[in-house]
Amino acid sequence: MEEANEILDNDQKFIALSVEEAYKGVESKDGYPFGAVIVRNDEVVVSCHNMVLINTDSTTHAEVTALREACKKLNKVDLSDCEIYASCEPCPMCFGAIQMSKIKKLVYGAKAEAAVAIGFDPIIADTLRGGTGHHQKGCMEIKKIEGSGAVIAEQVFQKTKHLFTLD
Amino acid sequence: MEEANEILDNDQKFIALSVEEAYKGVESKDGYPFGAVIVRNDEVVVSCHNMVLINTDSTTHAEVTALREACKKLNKVDLSDCEIYASCEPCPMCFGAIQMSKIKKLVYGAKAEAAVAIGFDPIIADTLRGGTGHHQKGCMEIKKIEGSGAVIAEQVFQKTKHLFTLD
Repeated sequence: MEEANEILDNDQKFIALSVEEAYKGVESKDGYPFGAVIVRNDEVVVSCHNMVLINTDSTTHAEVTALREACKKLNKVDLSDCEIYASCEPCPMCFGAIQMSKIKKLVYGAKAEAAVAIGFDPIIADTLRGGTGHHQKGCMEIKKIEGSGAVIAEQVFQKTKHLFTLD
Repeated sequence: MEEANEILDNDQKFIALSVEEAYKGVESKDGYPFGAVIVRNDEVVVSCHNMVLINTDSTTHAEVTALREACKKLNKVDLSDCEIYASCEPCPMCFGAIQMSKIKKLVYGAKAEAAVAIGFDPIIADTLRGGTGHHQKGCMEIKKIEGSGAVIAEQVFQKTKHLFTLD
């Protein structure tokens, strides 16, 4: 039971960090309200946010940015000893990138629909539903956070939507 | 009829260029045998190859690299006036990235199975089949090249496999 609580606490802690990054991303005007944290042995390897605006690069979502930085920091492309925490359910590109890197566990905060509700492209909600069941094959654990992590992750979109514009 | 032939020739020409990039990627030891070319108004915007090895970055597939470079070169993240030519069928990450950038047309050379056959992760073959039919919704035209483009694109893997090792 204690062990279960500890695991839960770590998940909540790292999701909270990814949510902080989401706010940072918007406040700094680097990009949109999405954050991602990569963890190894319960320690943060990198903590990143969406950089699409500052980089003028549609591929620099929070998760892709975090994977890229983690690869560089750890000097390897196989991240099978790592976990990723994302403030929002990953889009198909990011989920593909996460799978490609062999990350062992994905925990996410908000459902993608919370982002779609404020105007993000509905494609971002396509990853884990509909025809994409095959994505859940393999050894990656995928978990939607519950409790406080879910609440703060869902709030990001409504709380920041006045700070940016979408095409 | 003439117009149709011209379109076909352009497709073959740009696929041939993406295949050249695939060879370059391996010969330079930058990465694996995959190339991608982004075209606007029948002119090449960028021509890129897989950079995973040189960058130690699992996200720098040819298509993602090309999208990134095209965004920078054109100074915008919406590439809806562009087409992408890929030497091989894109993996789920790259296909997600292509969709995200709003590219209007994707033409690819080899089936992903040709890469899987020489040892690449079977995940790269997951994009356009199985449960992912929903990916083909929307306005993007997706085309598998036939004829000479298909032949040279399929040959890349067998011709280069002695030049690199996979994990």
